[in-house]
Amino acid sequence: MKPPHILAFDIFGTVVDWHGSIEREVAARHPAVDANAFALAWRAGYQPAMQRVRAGELGWTRIDELHRLILDGLLPRFGLAHLSETERADLNRAWHRLDPWPDAVAGLTRLKSRFTVCTLSNGNIGLLTNMAKRAGLPWDCILSAEVFHAYKPDPRTYLGVAQTFDLPPEQVMLVAAHQDDLAAARACGLQTTYIERPWEFGVKQPKDVSADPANTLHARDLLQLAERLGC
Amino acid sequence: MKPPHILAFDIFGTVVDWHGSIEREVAARHPAVDANAFALAWRAGYQPAMQRVRAGELGWTRIDELHRLILDGLLPRFGLAHLSETERADLNRAWHRLDPWPDAVAGLTRLKSRFTVCTLSNGNIGLLTNMAKRAGLPWDCILSAEVFHAYKPDPRTYLGVAQTFDLPPEQVMLVAAHQDDLAAARACGLQTTYIERPWEFGVKQPKDVSADPANTLHARDLLQLAERLGC
Repeated sequence: MKPPHILAFDIFGTVVDWHGSIEREVAARHPAVDANAFALAWRAGYQPAMQRVRAGELGWTRIDELHRLILDGLLPRFGLAHLSETERADLNRAWHRLDPWPDAVAGLTRLKSRFTVCTLSNGNIGLLTNMAKRAGLPWDCILSAEVFHAYKPDPRTYLGVAQTFDLPPEQVMLVAAHQDDLAAARACGLQTTYIERPWEFGVKQPKDVSADPANTLHARDLLQLAERLGC
Repeated sequence: MKPPHILAFDIFGTVVDWHGSIEREVAARHPAVDANAFALAWRAGYQPAMQRVRAGELGWTRIDELHRLILDGLLPRFGLAHLSETERADLNRAWHRLDPWPDAVAGLTRLKSRFTVCTLSNGNIGLLTNMAKRAGLPWDCILSAEVFHAYKPDPRTYLGVAQTFDLPPEQVMLVAAHQDDLAAARACGLQTTYIERPWEFGVKQPKDVSADPANTLHARDLLQLAERLGC
Protein backbone atom coordinates (compact mmCIF):
# COMPACT_ATOMS: atom_id res chain seq x y z
CA MET A 1 0.00 0.00 0.00
CA LYS A 2 1.38 3.38 -1.08
CA PRO A 3 0.16 5.98 1.42
CA PRO A 4 -2.23 8.58 -0.02
CA HIS A 5 -1.60 12.31 0.06
CA ILE A 6 -5.15 13.38 0.87
CA LEU A 7 -7.63 11.84 3.30
CA ALA A 8 -11.19 12.80 2.36
CA PHE A 9 -13.83 12.08 5.00
CA ASP A 10 -17.48 11.30 4.72
CA ILE A 11 -19.14 13.24 7.55
CA PHE A 12 -22.68 12.17 8.55
CA GLY A 13 -22.24 8.93 10.48
CA THR A 14 -18.49 8.69 9.88
CA VAL A 15 -17.18 11.74 11.76
CA VAL A 16 -20.32 12.93 13.54
CA ASP A 17 -23.17 11.08 15.24
CA TRP A 18 -26.21 12.41 13.39
CA HIS A 19 -28.63 9.99 15.05
CA GLY A 20 -27.69 10.73 18.64
CA SER A 21 -27.41 14.47 18.01
CA ILE A 22 -30.79 14.83 16.28
CA GLU A 23 -32.41 12.57 18.87
CA ARG A 24 -31.06 14.75 21.70
CA GLU A 25 -32.21 18.00 20.06
CA VAL A 26 -35.71 16.64 19.42
CA ALA A 27 -36.04 15.11 22.89
CA ALA A 28 -34.98 18.37 24.55
CA ARG A 29 -37.54 20.44 22.61
CA HIS A 30 -40.44 18.01 22.29
CA PRO A 31 -40.36 15.48 25.15
CA ALA A 32 -43.60 13.84 24.00
CA VAL A 33 -42.19 12.92 20.59
CA ASP A 34 -40.45 9.59 19.85
CA ALA A 35 -37.08 11.24 19.18
CA ASN A 36 -35.41 8.06 17.96
CA ALA A 37 -38.13 7.52 15.35
CA PHE A 38 -38.00 11.20 14.41
CA ALA A 39 -34.24 11.11 13.78
CA LEU A 40 -34.55 7.94 11.70
CA ALA A 41 -37.46 9.31 9.66
CA TRP A 42 -35.64 12.58 8.95
CA ARG A 43 -32.54 10.75 7.78
CA ALA A 44 -34.64 8.27 5.77
CA GLY A 45 -35.77 11.18 3.60
CA TYR A 46 -32.17 12.07 2.74
CA GLN A 47 -31.38 9.69 -0.13
CA PRO A 48 -34.80 10.12 -1.82
CA ALA A 49 -34.42 13.93 -1.63
CA MET A 50 -30.95 13.81 -3.22
CA GLN A 51 -32.34 11.42 -5.80
CA ARG A 52 -34.76 14.16 -6.91
CA VAL A 53 -31.72 16.37 -7.57
CA ARG A 54 -29.75 13.59 -9.28
CA ALA A 55 -32.74 12.79 -11.50
CA GLY A 56 -33.07 16.46 -12.48
CA GLU A 57 -36.53 16.79 -10.93
CA LEU A 58 -35.04 19.52 -8.70
CA GLY A 59 -32.26 21.84 -9.86
CA TRP A 60 -29.11 22.05 -7.73
CA THR A 61 -30.37 22.21 -4.14
CA ARG A 62 -28.30 22.32 -0.95
CA ILE A 63 -28.72 19.81 1.83
CA ASP A 64 -29.97 22.59 4.14
CA GLU A 65 -32.95 23.03 1.84
CA LEU A 66 -33.44 19.30 1.35
CA HIS A 67 -33.38 18.77 5.12
CA ARG A 68 -36.05 21.46 5.41
CA LEU A 69 -38.25 19.92 2.71
CA ILE A 70 -38.08 16.57 4.50
CA LEU A 71 -38.73 18.20 7.88
CA ASP A 72 -41.83 20.02 6.66
CA GLY A 73 -43.21 16.75 5.34
CA LEU A 74 -42.40 14.98 8.60
CA LEU A 75 -43.79 17.30 11.26
CA PRO A 76 -47.49 16.44 10.90
CA ARG A 77 -46.73 12.71 11.38
CA PHE A 78 -45.16 13.53 14.75
CA GLY A 79 -47.87 15.94 15.90
CA LEU A 80 -45.66 18.98 15.29
CA ALA A 81 -47.51 20.62 12.41
CA HIS A 82 -47.96 23.73 14.58
CA LEU A 83 -44.23 24.62 14.66
CA SER A 84 -43.57 28.20 13.52
CA GLU A 85 -41.22 29.22 10.73
CA THR A 86 -38.59 30.26 13.31
CA GLU A 87 -38.87 26.95 15.18
CA ARG A 88 -38.60 24.98 11.95
CA ALA A 89 -35.58 26.97 10.76
CA ASP A 90 -33.85 26.52 14.09
CA LEU A 91 -34.59 22.78 14.27
CA ASN A 92 -33.30 22.40 10.71
CA ARG A 93 -29.99 23.92 11.85
CA ALA A 94 -29.59 20.97 14.23
CA TRP A 95 -27.65 19.41 11.32
CA HIS A 96 -25.05 22.18 11.78
CA ARG A 97 -24.72 21.18 15.44
CA LEU A 98 -24.04 17.46 15.17
CA ASP A 99 -21.65 16.12 17.80
CA PRO A 100 -18.51 14.29 16.71
CA TRP A 101 -17.91 10.67 17.68
CA PRO A 102 -15.61 10.60 20.73
CA ASP A 103 -12.50 9.63 18.72
CA ALA A 104 -13.03 12.11 15.87
CA VAL A 105 -11.23 15.29 17.00
CA ALA A 106 -8.23 13.44 18.46
CA GLY A 107 -8.02 11.11 15.46
CA LEU A 108 -8.21 13.91 12.88
CA THR A 109 -5.65 15.96 14.77
CA ARG A 110 -3.18 13.09 14.56
CA LEU A 111 -3.97 12.37 10.92
CA LYS A 112 -3.58 16.07 10.05
CA SER A 113 0.03 15.97 11.21
CA ARG A 114 0.88 13.81 8.22
CA PHE A 115 -1.91 14.13 5.68
CA THR A 116 -4.10 16.81 4.20
CA VAL A 117 -7.48 16.12 5.78
CA CYS A 118 -10.62 17.34 4.05
CA THR A 119 -14.32 16.69 4.09
CA LEU A 120 -16.13 15.07 1.18
CA SER A 121 -19.73 15.26 2.22
CA ASN A 122 -23.08 15.82 0.59
CA GLY A 123 -23.61 18.45 3.30
CA ASN A 124 -23.26 22.04 2.12
CA ILE A 125 -20.17 24.15 2.77
CA GLY A 126 -21.84 26.44 5.33
CA LEU A 127 -23.20 23.48 7.28
CA LEU A 128 -19.81 21.74 7.33
CA THR A 129 -17.99 24.92 8.35
CA ASN A 130 -20.40 25.72 11.18
CA MET A 131 -20.22 22.10 12.36
CA ALA A 132 -16.41 22.09 12.32
CA LYS A 133 -16.16 25.37 14.19
CA ARG A 134 -18.53 24.23 16.92
CA ALA A 135 -17.05 20.75 17.28
CA GLY A 136 -13.38 21.65 16.78
CA LEU A 137 -12.89 19.47 13.70
CA PRO A 138 -9.50 20.58 12.33
CA TRP A 139 -10.04 20.35 8.54
CA ASP A 140 -7.39 21.59 6.16
CA CYS A 141 -10.11 22.14 3.60
CA ILE A 142 -13.88 21.79 3.36
CA LEU A 143 -14.95 20.06 0.17
CA SER A 144 -18.58 19.29 -0.48
CA ALA A 145 -20.98 18.16 -3.16
CA GLU A 146 -21.76 21.88 -3.30
CA VAL A 147 -18.31 22.56 -4.82
CA PHE A 148 -18.86 19.99 -7.56
CA HIS A 149 -22.62 20.50 -7.98
CA ALA A 150 -23.08 16.76 -7.80
CA TYR A 151 -24.04 14.44 -4.96
CA LYS A 152 -22.10 11.35 -3.99
CA PRO A 153 -21.94 8.69 -5.39
CA ASP A 154 -21.51 10.78 -8.57
CA PRO A 155 -17.91 10.21 -9.83
CA ARG A 156 -17.48 13.98 -10.17
CA THR A 157 -17.29 14.20 -6.38
CA TYR A 158 -14.54 11.61 -5.84
CA LEU A 159 -12.57 12.63 -8.92
CA GLY A 160 -13.19 16.25 -7.97
CA VAL A 161 -11.08 15.83 -4.83
CA ALA A 162 -8.17 14.48 -6.86
CA GLN A 163 -8.53 17.26 -9.43
CA THR A 164 -8.72 19.92 -6.73
CA PHE A 165 -5.29 18.87 -5.52
CA ASP A 166 -3.95 18.04 -8.98
CA LEU A 167 -3.26 14.45 -7.95
CA PRO A 168 -4.04 11.05 -9.46
CA PRO A 169 -7.06 9.37 -7.80
CA GLU A 170 -4.94 6.74 -6.05
CA GLN A 171 -3.30 9.45 -3.97
CA VAL A 172 -6.67 10.21 -2.40
CA MET A 173 -8.25 7.96 0.23
CA LEU A 174 -11.94 8.16 1.09
CA VAL A 175 -12.70 7.39 4.73
CA ALA A 176 -16.33 6.44 5.35
CA ALA A 177 -18.66 4.28 7.41
CA HIS A 178 -20.70 3.30 4.34
CA GLN A 179 -19.65 0.52 1.97
CA ASP A 180 -21.63 1.92 -0.98
CA ASP A 181 -19.84 5.27 -0.75
CA LEU A 182 -16.49 3.47 -0.60
CA ALA A 183 -17.33 1.20 -3.53
CA ALA A 184 -18.16 4.21 -5.69
CA ALA A 185 -14.89 5.87 -4.69
CA ARG A 186 -12.94 2.69 -5.52
CA ALA A 187 -14.56 2.57 -8.95
CA CYS A 188 -12.97 6.00 -9.52
CA GLY A 189 -9.53 4.73 -8.47
CA LEU A 190 -9.43 6.12 -4.92
CA GLN A 191 -8.05 4.21 -1.95
CA THR A 192 -10.68 3.50 0.73
CA THR A 193 -10.95 2.97 4.48
CA TYR A 194 -14.03 1.62 6.21
CA ILE A 195 -14.74 2.95 9.71
CA GLU A 196 -16.94 0.91 12.05
CA ARG A 197 -19.85 2.92 13.41
CA PRO A 198 -22.12 0.21 14.85
CA TRP A 199 -24.40 2.77 16.54
CA GLU A 200 -24.88 5.07 13.56
CA PHE A 201 -28.64 4.41 13.66
CA GLY A 202 -28.87 4.34 17.45
CA VAL A 203 -28.44 1.59 19.98
CA LYS A 204 -31.75 0.02 19.03
CA GLN A 205 -30.57 -0.63 15.47
CA PRO A 206 -27.00 -1.96 15.49
CA LYS A 207 -25.40 -1.78 12.07
CA ASP A 208 -23.44 -4.55 10.34
CA VAL A 209 -19.83 -3.39 10.42
CA SER A 210 -18.12 -6.40 8.91
CA ALA A 211 -15.03 -5.85 6.81
CA ASP A 212 -15.01 -5.80 3.02
CA PRO A 213 -11.59 -6.95 1.77
CA ALA A 214 -11.99 -4.63 -1.24
CA ASN A 215 -11.14 -1.67 1.03
CA THR A 216 -7.52 -0.60 1.44
CA LEU A 217 -7.97 -0.41 5.22
CA HIS A 218 -10.55 -1.23 7.87
CA ALA A 219 -10.44 0.58 11.22
CA ARG A 220 -12.56 0.65 14.35
CA ASP A 221 -12.37 4.44 14.54
CA LEU A 222 -10.22 7.40 13.53
CA LEU A 223 -7.66 6.82 16.27
CA GLN A 224 -7.07 3.30 15.03
CA LEU A 225 -6.81 4.68 11.48
CA ALA A 226 -4.14 7.14 12.68
CA GLU A 227 -2.25 4.22 14.21
CA ARG A 228 -2.53 2.17 11.00
CA LEU A 229 -1.21 5.11 8.98
CA GLY A 230 1.71 5.68 11.35
CA CYS A 231 0.55 9.02 12.79
CA MET B 1 -21.00 49.42 13.03
CA LYS B 2 -22.71 46.06 13.49
CA PRO B 3 -20.01 43.40 13.67
CA PRO B 4 -20.04 40.92 10.79
CA HIS B 5 -20.38 37.18 11.21
CA ILE B 6 -17.85 36.15 8.57
CA LEU B 7 -14.44 37.66 7.80
CA ALA B 8 -13.39 36.81 4.23
CA PHE B 9 -9.75 37.48 3.39
CA ASP B 10 -8.06 38.35 0.18
CA ILE B 11 -4.82 36.35 0.17
CA PHE B 12 -2.09 37.45 -2.29
CA GLY B 13 -0.61 40.60 -0.77
CA THR B 14 -3.08 40.79 2.12
CA VAL B 15 -2.23 37.63 4.09
CA VAL B 16 0.90 36.43 2.31
CA ASP B 17 3.89 38.28 0.85
CA TRP B 18 3.87 37.10 -2.76
CA HIS B 19 6.60 39.50 -3.86
CA GLY B 20 9.17 38.60 -1.20
CA SER B 21 8.39 34.88 -1.45
CA ILE B 22 8.68 34.67 -5.24
CA GLU B 23 11.78 36.86 -5.17
CA ARG B 24 13.44 34.53 -2.64
CA GLU B 25 12.55 31.38 -4.62
CA VAL B 26 13.88 32.83 -7.87
CA ALA B 27 17.05 34.24 -6.25
CA ALA B 28 17.84 30.88 -4.63
CA ARG B 29 17.49 28.96 -7.92
CA HIS B 30 18.80 31.47 -10.44
CA PRO B 31 21.22 33.89 -8.77
CA ALA B 32 21.99 35.65 -12.07
CA VAL B 33 18.35 36.67 -12.62
CA ASP B 34 16.89 39.99 -11.38
CA ALA B 35 14.53 38.29 -8.94
CA ASN B 36 12.67 41.48 -8.02
CA ALA B 37 11.90 42.19 -11.68
CA PHE B 38 10.95 38.54 -12.22
CA ALA B 39 8.45 38.57 -9.34
CA LEU B 40 6.89 41.83 -10.55
CA ALA B 41 6.66 40.61 -14.15
CA TRP B 42 5.03 37.33 -13.11
CA ARG B 43 2.45 39.11 -11.03
CA ALA B 44 1.89 41.72 -13.76
CA GLY B 45 0.58 38.94 -15.97
CA TYR B 46 -2.07 38.00 -13.39
CA GLN B 47 -4.87 40.47 -14.13
CA PRO B 48 -4.53 40.18 -17.96
CA ALA B 49 -4.64 36.37 -17.68
CA MET B 50 -7.80 36.46 -15.55
CA GLN B 51 -9.24 38.99 -17.99
CA ARG B 52 -8.97 36.36 -20.73
CA VAL B 53 -11.18 34.11 -18.59
CA ARG B 54 -13.61 36.91 -17.69
CA ALA B 55 -13.91 37.84 -21.37
CA GLY B 56 -14.66 34.23 -22.32
CA GLU B 57 -11.52 33.93 -24.45
CA LEU B 58 -10.47 31.08 -22.13
CA GLY B 59 -12.96 28.74 -20.45
CA TRP B 60 -12.81 28.39 -16.68
CA THR B 61 -9.09 28.11 -15.88
CA ARG B 62 -7.48 27.81 -12.46
CA ILE B 63 -4.83 30.23 -11.24
CA ASP B 64 -2.27 27.39 -11.21
CA GLU B 65 -2.67 27.10 -14.97
CA LEU B 66 -2.75 30.87 -15.50
CA HIS B 67 0.45 31.23 -13.45
CA ARG B 68 2.03 28.61 -15.66
CA LEU B 69 0.92 30.30 -18.91
CA ILE B 70 2.43 33.58 -17.68
CA LEU B 71 5.60 31.83 -16.52
CA ASP B 72 6.15 30.12 -19.87
CA GLY B 73 5.83 33.48 -21.60
CA LEU B 74 8.23 35.10 -19.14
CA LEU B 75 11.15 32.70 -19.03
CA PRO B 76 12.81 33.65 -22.35
CA ARG B 77 12.91 37.33 -21.28
CA PHE B 78 14.94 36.34 -18.22
CA GLY B 79 17.27 33.98 -20.02
CA LEU B 80 15.53 30.91 -18.58
CA ALA B 81 14.01 29.41 -21.72
CA HIS B 82 16.03 26.24 -21.10
CA LEU B 83 14.13 25.26 -17.93
CA SER B 84 12.74 21.71 -18.10
CA GLU B 85 9.10 20.75 -17.59
CA THR B 86 9.90 19.56 -14.06
CA GLU B 87 11.70 22.80 -13.19
CA ARG B 88 8.84 24.89 -14.56
CA ALA B 89 6.21 22.87 -12.70
CA ASP B 90 8.15 23.16 -9.47
CA LEU B 91 8.77 26.90 -9.84
CA ASN B 92 5.08 27.38 -10.59
CA ARG B 93 4.28 25.74 -7.27
CA ALA B 94 6.15 28.60 -5.55
CA TRP B 95 2.70 30.22 -5.36
CA HIS B 96 1.67 27.37 -3.01
CA ARG B 97 4.63 28.21 -0.78
CA LEU B 98 4.13 31.93 -0.18
CA ASP B 99 5.15 33.10 3.28
CA PRO B 100 2.62 34.91 5.45
CA TRP B 101 3.21 38.48 6.62
CA PRO B 102 4.61 38.37 10.18
CA ASP B 103 1.27 39.35 11.80
CA ALA B 104 -0.93 36.99 9.77
CA VAL B 105 -0.99 33.74 11.75
CA ALA B 106 -1.26 35.46 15.15
CA GLY B 107 -3.88 37.90 13.85
CA LEU B 108 -6.03 35.22 12.23
CA THR B 109 -5.81 33.04 15.32
CA ARG B 110 -7.22 35.87 17.42
CA LEU B 111 -9.90 36.74 14.86
CA LYS B 112 -10.92 33.07 14.59
CA SER B 113 -11.83 33.04 18.29
CA ARG B 114 -14.78 35.32 17.54
CA PHE B 115 -15.50 35.14 13.81
CA THR B 116 -15.65 32.56 11.07
CA VAL B 117 -12.52 33.27 9.04
CA CYS B 118 -12.36 32.18 5.42
CA THR B 119 -10.37 32.93 2.30
CA LEU B 120 -11.88 34.70 -0.68
CA SER B 121 -9.11 34.55 -3.22
CA ASN B 122 -8.75 34.13 -6.93
CA GLY B 123 -6.22 31.42 -6.06
CA ASN B 124 -7.50 27.87 -6.53
CA ILE B 125 -8.60 25.65 -3.65
CA GLY B 126 -5.60 23.31 -3.82
CA LEU B 127 -3.15 26.22 -3.85
CA LEU B 128 -4.86 27.88 -0.87
CA THR B 129 -5.02 24.61 1.09
CA ASN B 130 -1.36 23.76 0.49
CA MET B 131 -0.36 27.32 1.41
CA ALA B 132 -2.40 27.26 4.62
CA LYS B 133 -1.02 23.90 5.68
CA ARG B 134 2.59 24.97 5.14
CA ALA B 135 2.18 28.41 6.73
CA GLY B 136 -0.19 27.44 9.56
CA LEU B 137 -3.02 29.74 8.45
CA PRO B 138 -5.98 28.60 10.57
CA TRP B 139 -8.92 29.00 8.15
CA ASP B 140 -12.37 27.79 9.10
CA CYS B 141 -13.13 27.40 5.42
CA ILE B 142 -11.35 27.84 2.11
CA LEU B 143 -13.46 29.72 -0.41
CA SER B 144 -12.10 30.60 -3.80
CA ALA B 145 -13.08 31.90 -7.20
CA GLU B 146 -12.89 28.20 -8.08
CA VAL B 147 -16.00 27.50 -5.97
CA PHE B 148 -18.00 30.19 -7.77
CA HIS B 149 -16.40 29.76 -11.21
CA ALA B 150 -15.91 33.53 -11.36
CA TYR B 151 -12.94 35.75 -10.60
CA LYS B 152 -13.05 38.76 -8.31
CA PRO B 153 -14.28 41.46 -8.81
CA ASP B 154 -17.26 39.50 -10.18
CA PRO B 155 -20.21 40.02 -7.77
CA ARG B 156 -20.80 36.25 -7.73
CA THR B 157 -17.67 35.89 -5.59
CA TYR B 158 -18.60 38.41 -2.87
CA LEU B 159 -22.27 37.45 -2.84
CA GLY B 160 -21.22 33.82 -3.02
CA VAL B 161 -19.64 34.06 0.44
CA ALA B 162 -22.88 35.43 1.90
CA GLN B 163 -24.95 32.76 0.15
CA THR B 164 -22.59 30.00 1.28
CA PHE B 165 -23.34 30.92 4.88
CA ASP B 166 -26.98 31.86 4.23
CA LEU B 167 -26.39 35.39 5.52
CA PRO B 168 -27.19 38.86 4.22
CA PRO B 169 -24.15 40.54 2.55
CA GLU B 170 -23.71 43.07 5.39
CA GLN B 171 -22.86 40.21 7.77
CA VAL B 172 -19.78 39.48 5.68
CA MET B 173 -16.65 41.66 5.82
CA LEU B 174 -13.99 41.50 3.10
CA VAL B 175 -10.48 42.15 4.40
CA ALA B 176 -8.02 43.16 1.68
CA ALA B 177 -5.00 45.29 0.86
CA HIS B 178 -6.52 46.43 -2.44
CA GLN B 179 -9.02 49.28 -2.68
CA ASP B 180 -10.53 48.04 -5.96
CA ASP B 181 -11.35 44.64 -4.46
CA LEU B 182 -12.93 46.37 -1.45
CA ALA B 183 -14.93 48.78 -3.61
CA ALA B 184 -16.41 45.87 -5.58
CA ALA B 185 -17.32 44.09 -2.32
CA ARG B 186 -18.99 47.26 -0.98
CA ALA B 187 -21.04 47.55 -4.15
CA CYS B 188 -22.44 44.10 -3.23
CA GLY B 189 -23.32 45.26 0.29
CA LEU B 190 -20.39 43.72 2.19
CA GLN B 191 -18.53 45.49 4.98
CA THR B 192 -14.85 46.15 4.18
CA THR B 193 -11.51 46.55 5.94
CA TYR B 194 -8.40 47.87 4.27
CA ILE B 195 -5.07 46.43 5.46
CA GLU B 196 -1.87 48.42 4.90
CA ARG B 197 0.78 46.42 3.04
CA PRO B 198 3.24 49.12 1.97
CA TRP B 199 5.83 46.56 0.81
CA GLU B 200 3.48 44.39 -1.24
CA PHE B 201 5.55 45.12 -4.37
CA GLY B 202 8.91 45.03 -2.58
CA VAL B 203 10.90 47.70 -0.77
CA LYS B 204 11.87 49.40 -4.03
CA GLN B 205 8.23 50.14 -4.86
CA PRO B 206 6.42 51.39 -1.75
CA LYS B 207 2.65 51.30 -2.19
CA ASP B 208 0.22 54.09 -1.33
CA VAL B 209 -1.65 52.84 1.74
CA SER B 210 -3.77 55.89 2.53
CA ALA B 211 -7.19 55.35 4.03
CA ASP B 212 -10.42 55.44 2.07
CA PRO B 213 -13.26 56.57 4.37
CA ALA B 214 -15.66 54.38 2.36
CA ASN B 215 -14.24 51.31 4.14
CA THR B 216 -15.80 50.14 7.39
CA LEU B 217 -12.36 49.82 9.00
CA HIS B 218 -8.72 50.58 8.22
CA ALA B 219 -5.97 48.65 10.01
CA ARG B 220 -2.20 48.50 9.83
CA ASP B 221 -2.23 44.70 9.95
CA LEU B 222 -4.29 41.73 11.12
CA LEU B 223 -3.28 42.14 14.76
CA GLN B 224 -4.57 45.71 14.76
CA LEU B 225 -7.75 44.45 13.06
CA ALA B 226 -8.18 41.89 15.86
CA GLU B 227 -7.81 44.72 18.39
CA ARG B 228 -10.35 46.89 16.56
CA LEU B 229 -12.83 44.01 16.51
CA GLY B 230 -12.35 43.28 20.21
CA CYS B 231 -10.58 39.92 19.83
